[in-house]
Amino acid sequence: MRKLSIAQKAYVGGFLDGDRSIYVRLKPNVTYRFRHQIAPCVVFFQARKERAGLEYLHKLLGVGYIRERNDGIIEFTISDVKSIRFVLTMILPHLYLKKRQASLMLKILDKKERVETAQDFLKLCVLIDAFQHLNYSKRRVQTSASVQTVLEREGFLTP
Amino acid sequence: MRKLSIAQKAYVGGFLDGDRSIYVRLKPNVTYRFRHQIAPCVVFFQARKERAGLEYLHKLLGVGYIRERNDGIIEFTISDVKSIRFVLTMILPHLYLKKRQASLMLKILDKKERVETAQDFLKLCVLIDAFQHLNYSKRRVQTSASVQTVLEREGFLTP
Repeated sequence: MRKLSIAQKAYVGGFLDGDRSIYVRLKPNVTYRFRHQIAPCVVFFQARKERAGLEYLHKLLGVGYIRERNDGIIEFTISDVKSIRFVLTMILPHLYLKKRQASLMLKILDKKERVETAQDFLKLCVLIDAFQHLNYSKRRVQTSASVQTVLEREGFLTP
Repeated sequence: MRKLSIAQKAYVGGFLDGDRSIYVRLKPNVTYRFRHQIAPCVVFFQARKERAGLEYLHKLLGVGYIRERNDGIIEFTISDVKSIRFVLTMILPHLYLKKRQASLMLKILDKKERVETAQDFLKLCVLIDAFQHLNYSKRRVQTSASVQTVLEREGFLTP
């Protein structure tokens, strides 16, 4: 993590605004206490030939990692909570298209740390529903409703 | 055209870097002196649902126009030379991925204004070849070679 100038922060903000790249996934996973993993993510995409640009961003921010997908797209991914919070807090004043997503993501990360009961977890899932709605996510399978069904079935909540 | 703060310039730079959006087309057109039109362009693209973001950029810069394509993509296009020069000169220090394209575009705009002979025009087309090479443009039909063929056929140049 590095200290960026205002111009650098604004540049990263503009880059992120130009792309569809803040999201949070809700994944069924029995090894987790409430049977679901919450996986927040900030990703920058570019075609293979633009790899140098993502390497520039990677170096500038000093967090995350770069990988090449099978389809040749290069992804610069930031997926640990501390790094996401660092990046989004820094560029929030410079976001316009994705300001709501970034604010809601920061709220989700805060709530995620304070989950104690199944009720807390379910409230967090409702926030994730709102987030996915902002992103116009259509292939959504896991929602607060499906989480609630699982938590009731497993006895965490009474139907 | 408006005066932007450093953060605003950097934001526009980041936005442009995240997208594939500076290009120059060479179009056959018999109404032009050298039988070809040179059409420079800076475009920002977004899906329809992100229209507000492009409207923000449009208002911020105070140049260009917004249109919705048939496929639902929204384009914010800047195609007059004065506005392109204004925008690119301003954000050049904040570009990383597209710095070479922006510099070369500014050079092309300068040369374009000073074209007097068919030889000058052909030299300009060679610069456009270089530009299209930077953009990895594969569907390129018009090149300095095809322009040369036309100019020779029409008697502007001796083969």
